[in-house]
Amino acid sequence: MKVRVFVYLKEGVLDPQGKAVGHALQTLGFKGVEDVRISRVVELDVDAVDKAAAQKQGEDMARALLANEVIEDFRVEVCA
Amino acid sequence: MKVRVFVYLKEGVLDPQGKAVGHALQTLGFKGVEDVRISRVVELDVDAVDKAAAQKQGEDMARALLANEVIEDFRVEVCA
Repeated sequence: MKVRVFVYLKEGVLDPQGKAVGHALQTLGFKGVEDVRISRVVELDVDAVDKAAAQKQGEDMARALLANEVIEDFRVEVCA
Repeated sequence: MKVRVFVYLKEGVLDPQGKAVGHALQTLGFKGVEDVRISRVVELDVDAVDKAAAQKQGEDMARALLANEVIEDFRVEVCA
């Protein structure tokens, strides 16, 4: 089953990569760009009996490895 | 207007980061995990008159900076 784990910085945590990209976009002429935040998506195939099990496995993997819960939040999405 | 640009590797392009994460997950005991791919999402606020303009600006930014079209594809999503 396909699982997508979205990992993004918690609100209030500085995103230097986003800041740099925002600055570069401004330099390239995209003037009204603000509040750039960069997050990542981990897409994986898991071996689960149903959607609930896949969801649970996604959350377990996020907690164990994919997200740093001190500064990041995550959201798990199971695709059919 | 909030715009999300999803940038992911084209099919067939090797994703070493995904491979490493997949391997680490296996080591941690998540056995049935396969096909791990990691992509990124750039979320930004743009100054656009309507959804179509925001979409266009997102695509322009992806082509100019956010995606490397040699190895990556992108998808732009405009949030209300």
